[in-house]
Amino acid sequence: MASMDEPLFPTAPDADALENGAVLAPRFDGAGLIAAVLQHAATGEVMMLGWMNAEALRRTLDEGEVWFFSRSRNALWRKGDTSGQIQRVVEILVDCDQDVVLVKVDPQGDGGVCHTGHRACFYRVLKDGRLVERP
Amino acid sequence: MASMDEPLFPTAPDADALENGAVLAPRFDGAGLIAAVLQHAATGEVMMLGWMNAEALRRTLDEGEVWFFSRSRNALWRKGDTSGQIQRVVEILVDCDQDVVLVKVDPQGDGGVCHTGHRACFYRVLKDGRLVERP
Repeated sequence: MASMDEPLFPTAPDADALENGAVLAPRFDGAGLIAAVLQHAATGEVMMLGWMNAEALRRTLDEGEVWFFSRSRNALWRKGDTSGQIQRVVEILVDCDQDVVLVKVDPQGDGGVCHTGHRACFYRVLKDGRLVERP
Repeated sequence: MASMDEPLFPTAPDADALENGAVLAPRFDGAGLIAAVLQHAATGEVMMLGWMNAEALRRTLDEGEVWFFSRSRNALWRKGDTSGQIQRVVEILVDCDQDVVLVKVDPQGDGGVCHTGHRACFYRVLKDGRLVERP
């Protein structure tokens, strides 16, 4: 039986396993978190970056919907629970050293992710040193 | 005259300025770093995630080529200095709370970013719980 203390993910034994292996062995940072980039599966738009702890990543994999760990609230949360902006997982990729996950998503609700009401969090672009809102 | 101690970027006075303002006021973390997502400007492929300190971000803006701060080497470096994979900046966006930058790039050299030789760092996708290399 799995113990409560058993880690949810294995640790890669070496760099080769980390970079070339078939085993998902995410490297969480000192705070137990991994960066998760959400990209719209259909349009390719980068929507947001959030943070997952092991439990959030495990639930994301198991349930097919994005969970995060809120650093400000120190709590696990399913994206969209209050906003309706549930993020359905289409595909999950990891980077070379497995300290970032890229989640291709199909946003539910109004099709956005950002708490400001913009579709994506990256709604401002630098032009001549100023931030300009883009459509 | 600018002092050596003068910050390279301003701090937003409040959440409204942070989220709706035209002033770039990046929020660096406790280690003085901000996450930078590199996306291929032409294809939309998410290439990698790196970390910038204020100096790396400043140089990236001024020079139009991506600089990072290496956490393992504790040093500023221009991406591509040894690999030739210079990342020309096409466009820079910030997220709602300005703690992530999204850099759309035109990769030079062999057109890739990853030290493993893959074009992008996200070369493995999860399929039935295993990591599978994608073309």
